[in-house]
Amino acid sequence: MQQLAFRKFLPLFDRVLVERFTAETVTKGGIMLPEKSQGKVLQATVVAVGPGSVNQKGHVLPVSVKVGEKVLLPEYGGTKVVLDDKDYFLFRDGDILGKYVE
Amino acid sequence: MQQLAFRKFLPLFDRVLVERFTAETVTKGGIMLPEKSQGKVLQATVVAVGPGSVNQKGHVLPVSVKVGEKVLLPEYGGTKVVLDDKDYFLFRDGDILGKYVE
Amino acid sequence: MQQLAFRKFLPLFDRVLVERFTAETVTKGGIMLPEKSQGKVLQATVVAVGPGSVNQKGHVLPVSVKVGEKVLLPEYGGTKVVLDDKDYFLFRDGDILGKYVE
Amino acid sequence: MQQLAFRKFLPLFDRVLVERFTAETVTKGGIMLPEKSQGKVLQATVVAVGPGSVNQKGHVLPVSVKVGEKVLLPEYGGTKVVLDDKDYFLFRDGDILGKYVE
Amino acid sequence: MQQLAFRKFLPLFDRVLVERFTAETVTKGGIMLPEKSQGKVLQATVVAVGPGSVNQKGHVLPVSVKVGEKVLLPEYGGTKVVLDDKDYFLFRDGDILGKYVE
Amino acid sequence: MQQLAFRKFLPLFDRVLVERFTAETVTKGGIMLPEKSQGKVLQATVVAVGPGSVNQKGHVLPVSVKVGEKVLLPEYGGTKVVLDDKDYFLFRDGDILGKYVE
Amino acid sequence: MQQLAFRKFLPLFDRVLVERFTAETVTKGGIMLPEKSQGKVLQATVVAVGPGSVNQKGHVLPVSVKVGEKVLLPEYGGTKVVLDDKDYFLFRDGDILGKYVE
Repeated sequence: MQQLAFRKFLPLFDRVLVERFTAETVTKGGIMLPEKSQGKVLQATVVAVGPGSVNQKGHVLPVSVKVGEKVLLPEYGGTKVVLDDKDYFLFRDGDILGKYVE
Repeated sequence: MQQLAFRKFLPLFDRVLVERFTAETVTKGGIMLPEKSQGKVLQATVVAVGPGSVNQKGHVLPVSVKVGEKVLLPEYGGTKVVLDDKDYFLFRDGDILGKYVE
Repeated sequence: MQQLAFRKFLPLFDRVLVERFTAETVTKGGIMLPEKSQGKVLQATVVAVGPGSVNQKGHVLPVSVKVGEKVLLPEYGGTKVVLDDKDYFLFRDGDILGKYVE
Repeated sequence: MQQLAFRKFLPLFDRVLVERFTAETVTKGGIMLPEKSQGKVLQATVVAVGPGSVNQKGHVLPVSVKVGEKVLLPEYGGTKVVLDDKDYFLFRDGDILGKYVE
Repeated sequence: MQQLAFRKFLPLFDRVLVERFTAETVTKGGIMLPEKSQGKVLQATVVAVGPGSVNQKGHVLPVSVKVGEKVLLPEYGGTKVVLDDKDYFLFRDGDILGKYVE
Repeated sequence: MQQLAFRKFLPLFDRVLVERFTAETVTKGGIMLPEKSQGKVLQATVVAVGPGSVNQKGHVLPVSVKVGEKVLLPEYGGTKVVLDDKDYFLFRDGDILGKYVE
Repeated sequence: MQQLAFRKFLPLFDRVLVERFTAETVTKGGIMLPEKSQGKVLQATVVAVGPGSVNQKGHVLPVSVKVGEKVLLPEYGGTKVVLDDKDYFLFRDGDILGKYVE
């Protein structure tokens, strides 16, 4: 049931591993932004999802997002995870605000 | 089950995306109001709703409002979401106080 | 199931919209009371009720008061709602202390 | 199911309306007690009871005391209610400590 | 189901009425102890028990101790109750640590 | 169901009575340790167990340790109980970290 | 159901005993790192797992990791356990962030 876009790490329960979009470092007009002025990136791509949370009866409730989907993260929360020297973030499925659809 | 008035963003679980009515910037008598005197706008239009929360058995409990409905928001709470440079707000279905009916 | 005494606003879930009795501004002896001395009015009339709260199975549990009933409010709590320039208050059904019966 | 000893007020859910015994203002030896020395009266008579709390399935769980019973109140808690210029107190059924039996 | 060793008071729900053992006021060697040096008495005799707590389905879960049993009380908690000028204590069944068996 | 290694005291519900191992007061090299340097002893032997906690349906869920087993205690928590002038400790079954097996 | 890689200690309920990877004390370039500069090691190997948590019906919900698996620990939490003079850590199954798969 769990999906493994990111080949080597499998989140447990209802955790979702995401990779944030890269922050905009240049304005539309071409001016470079100092690090302080770069907003917190809340958009991310799902790279791995856990099998889902387990209810009191032992049944698994699958997560609501899939690998590859673009999601909107809450401003706070999430756990930074470093895999192969790259930053990823773990969020509980229920904390992800929504997803972008085509 | 979920509805997608706002074409590109789908809230997750029981989240509801709303667009607040524009604040009154002019009094009935025609005097312009400074930004400070403009009350917080608590009326909003539902622009997208999530599929609903998932109970312990995995069944989805649909949200109680529909896209297009006019709702009354609580004074506090909600998460600002910027989509296409426009401000929207996410509220949990259960936090919306009521809806206006014709 | 929900009732709509107040024609244009429908509370959601187990919320109850009430209109407080007008505060006594004159003593029994006919002396006008300054605003400070006027007690907080805890009696109110139900003007609209929500459909009821939704349990884990998706069943609706109706509220315990009806439009038109006179109720006793708790001293604290409730959310002020302005409809047509008139003040109303929203309370959770379970927070209303009791009702007056004839 | 609810009982209405006090004719005009019906508590909601598992609330119980009680009337405290009058405080002893005179000692056994006949000396008048100043108000400060009068202990808090914890004994009371049940004057009205709610229908009971409602469980998740919508079933009513009746309260455990009846109108007319003498009960022992906890030292703190309860909500003062004034009915016909007389003080009464509302307690949750589960907060009443016990009852006196003959 | 409830038991009434103490004839006139019936605890409600899972409450247990106990009478603490009398504090030792004299050491084994016969020296009188000042009140401060007397330890808090944690042993008690059950004098009355409630019918038990009520679960969500309305079924009663009986208490685990019986009238006459010697029990060990937690150091904190419990509610002092004065009946016929004598001190008793009410504890929730689940807060009693254990019982002494012969 | 409950077991009674310690003959006279029966813990209630899911409580477990343990006796801590005696603290090492001498180093391996034979030097006496002052009381302050003696570590807190977290190993203990189970001497009595309660019948188990009671679920909402009234069924008993037995405890997971047995009299005579060696267990690892959490660093904080537990209630000291003095029986026959000897110190014992009561822990909730769920707070015991693990057991030593041969 | 429980597994016992570590021969002598069996965690209770949903606890998982892990051994952290050894901290890097030398940089890739061969320079020794002072203790302060050594990051907290969040990778660990599972050495023993409890049988699982027990639900309200008494059924055991097995843990989601197995002995020998490489897991990612949260930055905070866990209980240090010393077995045979070696440091191990106990974590609740639900607190382990994910596992590394080949």
